[in-house]
Amino acid sequence: MQTTHRFSIKSQLRYRLDQDGWLLLNLAAARSPFQNLLSERVENSRGIAFREYEAPQGVSRFHGLAAPAGNLEIIYEAEVERTVFVGNPTMEIPESLLIDLPTEVVRFLYPSRYCESDKFVRLAAKEFGHLHPGHERVAGICNWIYTHIDYQPGATDQHTSAVDCLTLRAGVCRDFAHLGVTICRALGIPARYGSAYAFLLPQQDYHAFFEVWLGDRWWYYDATRLAPQQGFIHVGSGHDAADTSVATMSSSVQFDSMDVSVEKLSPHIVEFANGPVSF
Amino acid sequence: MQTTHRFSIKSQLRYRLDQDGWLLLNLAAARSPFQNLLSERVENSRGIAFREYEAPQGVSRFHGLAAPAGNLEIIYEAEVERTVFVGNPTMEIPESLLIDLPTEVVRFLYPSRYCESDKFVRLAAKEFGHLHPGHERVAGICNWIYTHIDYQPGATDQHTSAVDCLTLRAGVCRDFAHLGVTICRALGIPARYGSAYAFLLPQQDYHAFFEVWLGDRWWYYDATRLAPQQGFIHVGSGHDAADTSVATMSSSVQFDSMDVSVEKLSPHIVEFANGPVSF
Amino acid sequence: MQTTHRFSIKSQLRYRLDQDGWLLLNLAAARSPFQNLLSERVENSRGIAFREYEAPQGVSRFHGLAAPAGNLEIIYEAEVERTVFVGNPTMEIPESLLIDLPTEVVRFLYPSRYCESDKFVRLAAKEFGHLHPGHERVAGICNWIYTHIDYQPGATDQHTSAVDCLTLRAGVCRDFAHLGVTICRALGIPARYGSAYAFLLPQQDYHAFFEVWLGDRWWYYDATRLAPQQGFIHVGSGHDAADTSVATMSSSVQFDSMDVSVEKLSPHIVEFANGPVSF
Amino acid sequence: MQTTHRFSIKSQLRYRLDQDGWLLLNLAAARSPFQNLLSERVENSRGIAFREYEAPQGVSRFHGLAAPAGNLEIIYEAEVERTVFVGNPTMEIPESLLIDLPTEVVRFLYPSRYCESDKFVRLAAKEFGHLHPGHERVAGICNWIYTHIDYQPGATDQHTSAVDCLTLRAGVCRDFAHLGVTICRALGIPARYGSAYAFLLPQQDYHAFFEVWLGDRWWYYDATRLAPQQGFIHVGSGHDAADTSVATMSSSVQFDSMDVSVEKLSPHIVEFANGPVSF
Repeated sequence: MQTTHRFSIKSQLRYRLDQDGWLLLNLAAARSPFQNLLSERVENSRGIAFREYEAPQGVSRFHGLAAPAGNLEIIYEAEVERTVFVGNPTMEIPESLLIDLPTEVVRFLYPSRYCESDKFVRLAAKEFGHLHPGHERVAGICNWIYTHIDYQPGATDQHTSAVDCLTLRAGVCRDFAHLGVTICRALGIPARYGSAYAFLLPQQDYHAFFEVWLGDRWWYYDATRLAPQQGFIHVGSGHDAADTSVATMSSSVQFDSMDVSVEKLSPHIVEFANGPVSF
Repeated sequence: MQTTHRFSIKSQLRYRLDQDGWLLLNLAAARSPFQNLLSERVENSRGIAFREYEAPQGVSRFHGLAAPAGNLEIIYEAEVERTVFVGNPTMEIPESLLIDLPTEVVRFLYPSRYCESDKFVRLAAKEFGHLHPGHERVAGICNWIYTHIDYQPGATDQHTSAVDCLTLRAGVCRDFAHLGVTICRALGIPARYGSAYAFLLPQQDYHAFFEVWLGDRWWYYDATRLAPQQGFIHVGSGHDAADTSVATMSSSVQFDSMDVSVEKLSPHIVEFANGPVSF
Repeated sequence: MQTTHRFSIKSQLRYRLDQDGWLLLNLAAARSPFQNLLSERVENSRGIAFREYEAPQGVSRFHGLAAPAGNLEIIYEAEVERTVFVGNPTMEIPESLLIDLPTEVVRFLYPSRYCESDKFVRLAAKEFGHLHPGHERVAGICNWIYTHIDYQPGATDQHTSAVDCLTLRAGVCRDFAHLGVTICRALGIPARYGSAYAFLLPQQDYHAFFEVWLGDRWWYYDATRLAPQQGFIHVGSGHDAADTSVATMSSSVQFDSMDVSVEKLSPHIVEFANGPVSF
Repeated sequence: MQTTHRFSIKSQLRYRLDQDGWLLLNLAAARSPFQNLLSERVENSRGIAFREYEAPQGVSRFHGLAAPAGNLEIIYEAEVERTVFVGNPTMEIPESLLIDLPTEVVRFLYPSRYCESDKFVRLAAKEFGHLHPGHERVAGICNWIYTHIDYQPGATDQHTSAVDCLTLRAGVCRDFAHLGVTICRALGIPARYGSAYAFLLPQQDYHAFFEVWLGDRWWYYDATRLAPQQGFIHVGSGHDAADTSVATMSSSVQFDSMDVSVEKLSPHIVEFANGPVSF
């Protein structure tokens, strides 16, 4: 089943630069057959030209800029027509053998900065090894994370990894996504980190979820249960927050504040079906 | 200046499988304008067909196989004509601004599993921020690692990261490479992990070094000083040992033992020039 | 209910010293109203005089010696009459309010080297906060550890802490004890690490368990279920393995090998009652 | 050489309790031949009786209280006559052999929660092994910390240990003290963590330093160089901040704000001599 909705995104990000510095931004909605960008505006308050490019083989689009000392505001606005594919939760979406994975998917089996899956092999096998492979198992992982980890802004920081979060038992969407990615990889299931604008997200912010390779495509999973996955406007995907965060900055750049809003433009009533979601 | 040498590689890797499992091997010499594979043989003792592919956008070649329970031996043999470019150590090889990096190089600025460069920003700035950017700075990093870390087999294990090694002050080639990568990234210099067969390496083993993007290409650096870099036959490159190790295995596979030998075939005397080396 | 048994202990520990060094040994059975030492012999192969002392306010006895380079064997032999108090598992053994704890017990509420209870506060509350305070809760903690952690020699090393073990989900008696101590402290229950000679322990070795302050005394708990607690001959107690290990050594001392045996001398049949055990 | 000064201390600590909870406070000036308490007042805004006791064998004094939900203010005021012994920096203050240490000092050789000295053995030997044992070596450690670590409030938190700080290269007095303790223990020198009211401290706060056992007594060392050591009014000493922090609290207690002031009452001019300081 497919659903199509139209969303309007507005975001301002404000930074302070002690001295000249640079930012690499990953805030533009991804372009794909499932995301039709009706309009888009990426600007900054200093009128500096961006360097734009797409991650090789990835879905992420980057905007880089070098900026002088002072204040800097980044503005992003877009209208996006978003189609999502909603699977039938009772249907089979099988895991793949390593040997059958597409070449570009294999790298999402390896541990990464915030997803130390090499340390989770035994935990993953003990907690989730007995579950039915495929969607049922990943849904079980999401339930475990939702049950065992408190959603608690401020409990973690930019250095927090899956190992840290497993102990502290608290975190934000980024940490929930890292745990999901880590457990899947530890089971031999390719998984990656996704970032998005999310309709109906309780707080104004960017959102993070995780993607799992089942069958022949990436499926979205979000253990936070904060917003309907059919309202995700996909921004980027990567190994983890290390290469998928909204902004990578030189040390002279300090984050100041931001505003994010996502509106639904399509006139008809929101009807979000239940079930696994793919893009 | 370029040098060309011809090498013969022989390697056997022996594993035990408790039950059916899989291995993803990264042991074949890379193919490039600088590495001419005159002959090559990749076989296994069970006669199982390999799945072969190259990492998208990477230099690594992979051989995957699913194998039944029991013993398994992997044999790799090759003759390689290896050309290396030896830079003049007194010449300038500048660092690049983020904004000018090739798209496929940018991802090697991010922290990864064993290279927590997000935690090293202050250390890198304090210890190496004053050095002249470019080769001189990276050479300073190599000297610091060589001086501060003991080469000590057994002191670290497969979970050891740059943070761990910085404290323990001991490690093997893998750990030396991780530290080099981490410090460079913390300074905003793209760096990646490299694996190789190495001529004249004191112990029979695979070797690890690190690669740094300076000017318009990747340069080799090796803080272990164990073997001449002109005798490296390049196998793979990646974020760190997570995606560049010789073998990624399912949990049912146990490493048993291995033999590695690298012979020099070219008749003339070995004359390894000093200086930074690129491939 | 009290039981009294008589045990014979024999232990040899062998070390190699690259150069002059020292060892601080914690291998002698503790003296207490519950442990009557009928005979004891502590010797070393170099005939060096030990410095003997008891830990201030602790149960541990120490034997220190400075030794020259070369081989060194430590011999410990003792006959011990051991009385243990076996509680009724259905009876109440309540937790104490901090405010009512004996002065010398309070320090066992703090985190220590291998027991980072400051990081476990939320986990402990979520997993065990709903259990009935006292013995029932601690028994629940033991069951959780036994169920979630694999007893797996070689999976951990001397640097492994409770945080590490929680992720890796494997360890030895030392790690099981650290987890127990950590979770109790995170709940505000005083807990400490105990070492012992253990009758019927499957492998020849020293054993570790944990002690919990309930009511007016320390009770023994052992999540490994490897040996009957009534057969423990208490050696030492402390914050964790950092101050309760068999030997603390200068860097010039290498452990070589050891033998440990515990025999039961009392002629009557072994009748180990079930239930919580105190010394 | 001895100096004697008279100080007036005033401190208010404000907390919020979501529900009933408890605090264990370590904020009273220690009583010793070197600290004569001329007057003292310990009160709280709810008029609850404190439970007072001294740490067994330690210098710390504790005030425990159970309090109901709501706001809570703790008031501490004292006048203290403080005598410090100032050593001659060129004199010998030797390190002791383990075998000669007083029994109650030995436990400060072990690693503790925030001082993982078991991981620093090689670093300590490489960086400080060649220095002249005794005061000269410890002074070298202080210089190294002062040079390599930035004093940076906010860079660390209550979970930060010596390993973390060594990598991050930033911290506050607590972290500087932990590093000093850790390096000393890794060299086999007993060291402990000290807390104090400090005259002339730039910010209103409690202060932390470290103590090293040299010769026949504990000497003060402070790698932060923030305030003269002769103006320290000693509060407590322990393994590290785990057992020496100002307040240990149940999870229902939140710190709100505090005021601390230290005035010098003695009429004569401040003449702080240079040199190592003991209490």
